[in-house]
Amino acid sequence: MEPIRVTFLGPAASFSHQAAVECFGSSAELSPRLSFADAFAAVQQGEADYAIIPVENSTNGSVVQNLDLLGDRYGLYEDVNVCGEHYLTVHHCLLVRKGLSQPDIRSITKLYTHPQAWGQCENFLGKFLKGVERQDVSSTSKAAEMVSLETQERSGAIASRFAADYHGLHVLSENIEDRADNTTRFLVLRNTKSERTASLPFDAVKAPAVSLKPPPTPSAEKTLISFRIRQDFPGALADALLIFKEFGMNLTSINTRPSQRRAWQYIFFVECQQFPTDQNNQGVTKILDKMQQVTEGCRHLGTWKDQLSTSKV
Amino acid sequence: MEPIRVTFLGPAASFSHQAAVECFGSSAELSPRLSFADAFAAVQQGEADYAIIPVENSTNGSVVQNLDLLGDRYGLYEDVNVCGEHYLTVHHCLLVRKGLSQPDIRSITKLYTHPQAWGQCENFLGKFLKGVERQDVSSTSKAAEMVSLETQERSGAIASRFAADYHGLHVLSENIEDRADNTTRFLVLRNTKSERTASLPFDAVKAPAVSLKPPPTPSAEKTLISFRIRQDFPGALADALLIFKEFGMNLTSINTRPSQRRAWQYIFFVECQQFPTDQNNQGVTKILDKMQQVTEGCRHLGTWKDQLSTSKV
Repeated sequence: MEPIRVTFLGPAASFSHQAAVECFGSSAELSPRLSFADAFAAVQQGEADYAIIPVENSTNGSVVQNLDLLGDRYGLYEDVNVCGEHYLTVHHCLLVRKGLSQPDIRSITKLYTHPQAWGQCENFLGKFLKGVERQDVSSTSKAAEMVSLETQERSGAIASRFAADYHGLHVLSENIEDRADNTTRFLVLRNTKSERTASLPFDAVKAPAVSLKPPPTPSAEKTLISFRIRQDFPGALADALLIFKEFGMNLTSINTRPSQRRAWQYIFFVECQQFPTDQNNQGVTKILDKMQQVTEGCRHLGTWKDQLSTSKV
Repeated sequence: MEPIRVTFLGPAASFSHQAAVECFGSSAELSPRLSFADAFAAVQQGEADYAIIPVENSTNGSVVQNLDLLGDRYGLYEDVNVCGEHYLTVHHCLLVRKGLSQPDIRSITKLYTHPQAWGQCENFLGKFLKGVERQDVSSTSKAAEMVSLETQERSGAIASRFAADYHGLHVLSENIEDRADNTTRFLVLRNTKSERTASLPFDAVKAPAVSLKPPPTPSAEKTLISFRIRQDFPGALADALLIFKEFGMNLTSINTRPSQRRAWQYIFFVECQQFPTDQNNQGVTKILDKMQQVTEGCRHLGTWKDQLSTSKV
């Protein structure tokens, strides 16, 4: 069989790349894209079987570009659907070139990383690398690449162990981030019209080592639904959210983005959760039927196995 | 009486500065701050009577830094409250130096603006300024300042008419933005313990010319409430939102931000609306009482007069 084709936002050795490897293993054919929109388009057009995209970070919140792409205001990604999720814990390392004589943190004269990573490693940097010149680059992976290309300097990069392996760097210090629980949630996308991924659902192909903790029992399912509220209809939002409660669905998150059709109209993204039983297996269909009566543009963006826990809000 | 002291995010001639002038008139003492956090702190510490901060844009969505400051995770701004709102329509102009001989769009050799403004004026730029060198700067107001400081070059800035007036530039073309309805909503903050602003409520001091359209009759009030959901309590979010419906409050917006206490716990920001009557004048108090029973850290962030319309969702 041909390898599974997975796409993600580059550059190589990015956190998205790492998530793709953790999810699909190294036998998949992994190809970076230049933008999230390109990754969505690749799935829509059948150039990739799956895309893996970050949607929220436990510290920084939603990745709004990807909510906007899921909201699909211009009908470009009609067949793109969420089929899974993956949680990646963000660990930073201090990386230097291999083969340096006596690699020592005190000999580092310059540091490279993404602007966000400075803030995430403040304690470590304040303690061990105070006053060292810092240069912003476009990604932590790019920082690792720049250090790997040096020949004379004694620079350091703050990036992942994955980036260290990819660019052949030496890990001088590991887990230097201030918060141990900084985690990014990725969604896995497929094309609903693809026969290839229909017969190969995400749960069957994903790398078996992906779960470090045992899966929750019984396994919960998450569903993502987007909709707009009809104008001039007081109470419409509360009525829409009540439908989830009526069918026993637990609301786990709500996000809003401007609809860009009218000022101050929003697209809502509601994620809900349930434990599937014989009784409720039509729940999502019933919710959608009812939602379509009280909202505009209601769309089922996918249902997948909850990878986090059984005890969310 | 001493002038009213109003603070906003600088630099001078920013959109926040313009909103402050539209709201409070030119007799107020206006002072820019270097960050939104500084503006919050100025109100908390009594250095300013009011702060005016952007919270959402009709095209780009929420300003998450200000949601985080309103969420007040570290208890720094306990007395800061929302007392009003202001809508500012974002218009861009093409500005050049005054006194140029024969100012002509075709003679412009370089353009300055904030990265977001390029995208907002794509049609105009594609038609009249294709291929002209572009330089990103940190704000549209900064772009106007840079052009005003030039002596030899024939550069143009994309910025507001307000920035043109402030920096003494010539408006070559007006309203060059693609979307005519691109609007930013600002909130007005005061200190609940300040006697000065208690006896001078925002509605009384604000510039009379602020409303171009007549205020809605009867006038609606908006209320902003923040809370966290108790962990391990399925259905808690739906139950909390139901309370608003129970007391006849119309939900107008919901935003979430990471609580940063636990991964995947959120602070919810719920805005609701009602038309005050003799019957419902205790509505907000009753909602808060009930919300405190089912949520954590529930806080009333303010109630103010709806400046938009009577017909929101």
